[in-house]
Amino acid sequence: MTASEIRALFAVASRPEVVSLAGGMPTLDALPLGEVAEIVRRCAAEQASVALQYGSGQGDSLAREQIVDVMTTVGVTCDPDDVVVTTGSQHALDLLVRILVDPGDVVLVESPSYVGALGVLRSYEADIRHVETGPQGAEPAAVAAAVAQARSEGRRVKALYVVPHHQNPSGATTSAARRVELLEQCRRDGVLVIEDDPYALLGFDSEPLAAMRSLDPGGVVYLGSFSKTFAPGLRVGWAVAPPAIRAKLVLAAEASVLCPSMFSQRVVATYLAGSDWRAHVKVLRGTYRERRDALLGALEQQLPQAHATRPEGGFFTWVRLPEGVDAAAMLPRAVAARVAYVPGTAFHADGGGSDHVRLSFCFPTPERLVEGVRRLTAVVAAEQELVQTFGSTLRPDDARTLPAHADRPASDTA
Amino acid sequence: MTASEIRALFAVASRPEVVSLAGGMPTLDALPLGEVAEIVRRCAAEQASVALQYGSGQGDSLAREQIVDVMTTVGVTCDPDDVVVTTGSQHALDLLVRILVDPGDVVLVESPSYVGALGVLRSYEADIRHVETGPQGAEPAAVAAAVAQARSEGRRVKALYVVPHHQNPSGATTSAARRVELLEQCRRDGVLVIEDDPYALLGFDSEPLAAMRSLDPGGVVYLGSFSKTFAPGLRVGWAVAPPAIRAKLVLAAEASVLCPSMFSQRVVATYLAGSDWRAHVKVLRGTYRERRDALLGALEQQLPQAHATRPEGGFFTWVRLPEGVDAAAMLPRAVAARVAYVPGTAFHADGGGSDHVRLSFCFPTPERLVEGVRRLTAVVAAEQELVQTFGSTLRPDDARTLPAHADRPASDTA
Repeated sequence: MTASEIRALFAVASRPEVVSLAGGMPTLDALPLGEVAEIVRRCAAEQASVALQYGSGQGDSLAREQIVDVMTTVGVTCDPDDVVVTTGSQHALDLLVRILVDPGDVVLVESPSYVGALGVLRSYEADIRHVETGPQGAEPAAVAAAVAQARSEGRRVKALYVVPHHQNPSGATTSAARRVELLEQCRRDGVLVIEDDPYALLGFDSEPLAAMRSLDPGGVVYLGSFSKTFAPGLRVGWAVAPPAIRAKLVLAAEASVLCPSMFSQRVVATYLAGSDWRAHVKVLRGTYRERRDALLGALEQQLPQAHATRPEGGFFTWVRLPEGVDAAAMLPRAVAARVAYVPGTAFHADGGGSDHVRLSFCFPTPERLVEGVRRLTAVVAAEQELVQTFGSTLRPDDARTLPAHADRPASDTA
Repeated sequence: MTASEIRALFAVASRPEVVSLAGGMPTLDALPLGEVAEIVRRCAAEQASVALQYGSGQGDSLAREQIVDVMTTVGVTCDPDDVVVTTGSQHALDLLVRILVDPGDVVLVESPSYVGALGVLRSYEADIRHVETGPQGAEPAAVAAAVAQARSEGRRVKALYVVPHHQNPSGATTSAARRVELLEQCRRDGVLVIEDDPYALLGFDSEPLAAMRSLDPGGVVYLGSFSKTFAPGLRVGWAVAPPAIRAKLVLAAEASVLCPSMFSQRVVATYLAGSDWRAHVKVLRGTYRERRDALLGALEQQLPQAHATRPEGGFFTWVRLPEGVDAAAMLPRAVAARVAYVPGTAFHADGGGSDHVRLSFCFPTPERLVEGVRRLTAVVAAEQELVQTFGSTLRPDDARTLPAHADRPASDTA
């Protein structure tokens, strides 16, 4: 499939009659809309001279103070001066890669890794290398080996990019012990850790682990987001970075957008300061737990020949398809059957993943999730029949470069 | 001055006791705040499922439809599909340069040129070359010569960047005839025109000229902004681009921020669709005309030994200081005297401009503008005395790289 074919496919997949297990859109059902409406009204009516004006490239000081408070939930003590507010955490990652990576520089990523991060890394021509990743997280020995290999080739290794809580796409959480081991390995190797942590607070039954940033402030850039816990439409994310990197991030942010939206920042800061956002997050945890259970229950019942991970939080499960079934090849037929997913190839820079799909349970209701699995099961069964008749449907030249946006189908049609 | 010294200086310059003739912040006094508050409330209360959610990387279709309507004010007929909505027009420029420019590629700019554009071009390691620019705009013969020179050096010339209406910093408008000549020259040379047009609607006594984009849709990328005519705090700008460039812009936008803020876009679209925004722009034109008159009147009366341009719109006048006075060297003393400006060196990539300052009349009231000129006059007089005693204060190694944000001091302290 070409990029435009994939784009066309996702346009169809965003139609309401399709059950999308593809998108990473959070549910907004639990948002206290009356409260939010009153907050935005007050920001415009009472703080207009600041909220509607240009602001600082580093971000609003009130927003940064609130972010410092949010960071304590993952055990990080920092100062507002350590924080850079960005247009969603994607922008923080983009700016960070922009200042760190020259074409050909190596960046290590988990296997699989977040499609949007791979897109950013590709756009700056990073040499992306996956390291072996188990249920506890990336393997420190694999990191060490990849660093040694890259250096033996005369390449610079700029960073290890990880999503330690409820990873996108695998759903796995890097264990507390593994976090320490990875940090020790990266410190020995002089490799910066990029800790992308949008799902930290969305553990279903457990509090977040201590962020890697809390264990090694000098060696970790932490990326956070309000897109999953408040509202993605505001585009507010942030980075907590060591001083030298932070200074460069601010310069890059100024070149890129002058400043992030003051209005969005004031809305977020007002919400965090005056609303019981922890209670809202608790409701979200319950909602997503119920949806995970619905999706996994339906998969277990209807599609037992596939193997799905059991995430303890976040939005996604990573599903190995029955042998011989190719996720990318099956996608057009799945969309025709009104169910969508993201093929595993999107999460690999090296052509892997064609036997996996990422299914998300964040947006559809439990009933729709069950219906989605019913449709998917029929499509998989038809694929298996094809496999039995003609051999594997696996193709060597799978579409490997989904657009970054593939992760979040356009809601533009709504 | 180092970058951090400049930064410290601008931090001081943003204090309320300083009259800032430096910033490009629009006045928000004329905004119908009650109406805006009601619009944002309704966007949150009634459109939450779209306005608070992720959107498309190209931008919201409703916002793009409204932008198509706005484009008719500068004579451009386009389709919503030609439009890419961005996080302010700075982001459109940043993405455009990102997809166009490889390190060492030549980009031609007016002399002087917008500091924020120079910052973006520098950050992608463009080879920035100023072309001679008169009161009618950039000289086509100078463009031709610069292209020939660059090509004789084996360099690729990627674009000509211009601000045709009420230029930042000179205040000059490229005449209708010159627009045609420049387009013909660029077409002959195969050079893309980047038309940055945030001040188009802010002519004091005249309607805007036809945009260059309207004369050559295939050869021009148009950049627009709601920051001057509505509110910069929302960060909504746009590009109108030929199809091949537009497609790349969308991909780059997705890698950079996934999508622009849906909330901001819906606020802007609702405002444009339901409010008399043309009447608001008319009020702004009157406000800025009054402020220009106050600033130029005070300069004429108090500082006749300087020469200021007389802009017919926009935010800025470009002032040549009395002989021997160095704008960058004088700045710390000006800030100590509680008046700020941007030294002309910020608008030159080639070390020029040290004998000029950019004075903005957009934000301070007429009374404050007059007071600012009073303070500036005293500082200039003291500098002239120094010059007469010790010779020129001009230094060969002026600070040439103001941060992009220097253009808009932080309102963060408010």
